[in-house]
Amino acid sequence: MDAFKGLPEARVISDPSDLAPFLQDESHLRGILPLAVVKPHGPAALRELVRRAKAEGFGLVPRGAGTGKAGGCLPTERTVVVDFSEWPGEIQVSPQDLCLRAPASAPLRDVKAAAEARGLFYPPDPNSWESCALGGTLATNAGGPNACKYGMTRHWVLAVDALLEDGELHTFGISSVKANAGPSLGQLLIGSEGLFGFITGATLRLTPLPREYTTLLLPVKRWEDLLELPGRLCGAGYLPSAFEFFDPAVLAELRAHGPEEARRLPGEALAILEFDDRGSTSDAFLEGLLDLLGPVADQLEVASDARQRQGIWAVRRMTSVFLKERHPRKVSEDIVVPRSRLREFFAGVGRLDIPAVTYGHLGDGNLHVNLLAAGETDPALLDRQLMDLFSLAISLGGTLSGEHGIGLAKRDAFLALSDPGHIRTLRALKQALDPQGIFNPGKMV
Amino acid sequence: MDAFKGLPEARVISDPSDLAPFLQDESHLRGILPLAVVKPHGPAALRELVRRAKAEGFGLVPRGAGTGKAGGCLPTERTVVVDFSEWPGEIQVSPQDLCLRAPASAPLRDVKAAAEARGLFYPPDPNSWESCALGGTLATNAGGPNACKYGMTRHWVLAVDALLEDGELHTFGISSVKANAGPSLGQLLIGSEGLFGFITGATLRLTPLPREYTTLLLPVKRWEDLLELPGRLCGAGYLPSAFEFFDPAVLAELRAHGPEEARRLPGEALAILEFDDRGSTSDAFLEGLLDLLGPVADQLEVASDARQRQGIWAVRRMTSVFLKERHPRKVSEDIVVPRSRLREFFAGVGRLDIPAVTYGHLGDGNLHVNLLAAGETDPALLDRQLMDLFSLAISLGGTLSGEHGIGLAKRDAFLALSDPGHIRTLRALKQALDPQGIFNPGKMV
Repeated sequence: MDAFKGLPEARVISDPSDLAPFLQDESHLRGILPLAVVKPHGPAALRELVRRAKAEGFGLVPRGAGTGKAGGCLPTERTVVVDFSEWPGEIQVSPQDLCLRAPASAPLRDVKAAAEARGLFYPPDPNSWESCALGGTLATNAGGPNACKYGMTRHWVLAVDALLEDGELHTFGISSVKANAGPSLGQLLIGSEGLFGFITGATLRLTPLPREYTTLLLPVKRWEDLLELPGRLCGAGYLPSAFEFFDPAVLAELRAHGPEEARRLPGEALAILEFDDRGSTSDAFLEGLLDLLGPVADQLEVASDARQRQGIWAVRRMTSVFLKERHPRKVSEDIVVPRSRLREFFAGVGRLDIPAVTYGHLGDGNLHVNLLAAGETDPALLDRQLMDLFSLAISLGGTLSGEHGIGLAKRDAFLALSDPGHIRTLRALKQALDPQGIFNPGKMV
Repeated sequence: MDAFKGLPEARVISDPSDLAPFLQDESHLRGILPLAVVKPHGPAALRELVRRAKAEGFGLVPRGAGTGKAGGCLPTERTVVVDFSEWPGEIQVSPQDLCLRAPASAPLRDVKAAAEARGLFYPPDPNSWESCALGGTLATNAGGPNACKYGMTRHWVLAVDALLEDGELHTFGISSVKANAGPSLGQLLIGSEGLFGFITGATLRLTPLPREYTTLLLPVKRWEDLLELPGRLCGAGYLPSAFEFFDPAVLAELRAHGPEEARRLPGEALAILEFDDRGSTSDAFLEGLLDLLGPVADQLEVASDARQRQGIWAVRRMTSVFLKERHPRKVSEDIVVPRSRLREFFAGVGRLDIPAVTYGHLGDGNLHVNLLAAGETDPALLDRQLMDLFSLAISLGGTLSGEHGIGLAKRDAFLALSDPGHIRTLRALKQALDPQGIFNPGKMV
């Protein structure tokens, strides 16, 4: 499309042979060939893109680093991909204000490192934190293991810079956690997956780096006991900063076929727990904690230095990689179940006969339910299995996505299973903020 | 208005002589006589009220405990006050899920106490926490001293129950911090001051109660040093859970006319600091902290037990009460300035010759600027002084309200000083979610 050649402040990619990388993200979906990919270098490009989109009736699809899991950045029919990877701006830390400004293009890894270099902490830690871009984490309200204690991305954003349908950039919020001049439009944009506009940068809230960690590797004797543990720990005042787990099937597969270090792991299921601050290395804390963990542990490894801590976390990473390599066509879901209903959930999965293995973030009930045989399953049956899974989570007070979002991947399920009033309200907002439907068309609602 | 007599599930107050209490909140404003006050006892009352409001063209004004500071709950022309004080529901704590469900009518004091009784903490602590209702704190996104470390009300809400313009109650959110199924409509409602609908209940996020506190009373030798302290502490990794202050004028008045205990206070200005958890009672922490505070302190009192801690906080409470009693017609503003710009702000107040004394939450830059002579000042001049004050805060990257909100009190300033795109967007949202304008008409936008 030569039509995009005259765009100011932008690099345009329109040769079809160069567009292939933009048809995928980290979901199992593929997009449709876009009209072009535009990498904006300034507001003039965005203003002109919005003008042409409205005049010529095409859509705009935002893209960060392409590490999303729900197809939210994949081009749909008659769209231009707006790739923010070359959006200008520096990461600027203000330790006095406990905040940091960064453009959407900033790698999350660099954002976290810039904070750490000043003794500060930006908690959001999606699994892709070493490869994703800040903009994508804002658009999807990303979370990770630390959400258990620290909350999601939305809890750590003070202000958002966003392109709205008037073609202009607007800033919503200030660089202070205390600000109460009207409803938060920034909060509406975070997690909206580009539905109402595109986020181009943000001011993030920081907190001092934790001063101490206790990390534990916990193979448990009985799987059922593990399912009670998140609620029991929280009820006793022990809130983990991360609580990851692998169910019996994953542990068995790891033991049988996994890397050498994994084969020696005992127990029926496996958990990794981390606590930070709050005296979490004190004798009193550890004694109380071990009183709770002892009865369920098959073995217990407590990291007493940074190297041992890394060793324990390597088990977590290794397992994700191992499962993906062994089952490249598996489908990994991302449901949430309240901590107090975990046992009921797994009983339900058994009753529904869904052939799933599960790992993920047990501490906050965000479970990655993996259908390993998805690639060989009849698509209609697979769909039914997924809908059963989502319905089960929702019936227990949970939801169908804890961190990945809706995008294309869960659009149908989201529309089918949500409260109709919720969908109606979202559509009214979409109509109000993007009446011509230029932003990320065909996604979510 | 006998028209409201037939309302199901409600108590109606329509005798004009009984309506006086509903014409005021804790602002200096007064409302207009409403058509009636309705205390709903169930969803049927709300459904019917919405239906009649649309059919008969009157507005609905939400009211909690009437402790707001911005006139948000005051009746405007042709409105019915919907007073949620008798809205049914119990406070239910779920320690396993680290959450609590409560109706809008629950006193915030009871909400906080119910959490504490289970060893858990709900941080939001507006000054009115002993008298306000949960619903009002949600509608206004209330904050208090603890916002400095813990953030605002919006950071502690998992799910919101709300009446929308379809007349029905909807729940947005689940009882887990990890939930990512689309944009958060709950976050849009928190702090919206009833503009888009009324909040009837919520599921709140809790965290374990802090295990330790260090509280300090800090009279400083030089006022200028105090203004540097929030940024310096945060930059050095010492994030207070509260950092309150009184400027030289307030301290001088307190010393001259205040209660006996206050007359002995030395120094040019006064601060109260509190730190919780993160080893805040350890020798290493206190040594590092005293290294930072020593050079600016005129004297330093460190609370070493709960009684001493209460004694220090009594100074804070006493001062608010003392100022209000001495200057009953004063106007207390609520602006925010980023921590790093505090010196510039006070220099600006001096340059503009605004006759103000200031106290409040220095740690997060939320300043209560008090115009003591407001009652005797020409209204046009007073308006100009306030607009100058707001403009100054905004020019330094701050905003015109940190915790009180907009309501009626700051409506004109909000409309005049906000980014026009922001106001346009809010109006588009209002039009989308409340096309007939039945919810809290005449407020904010």
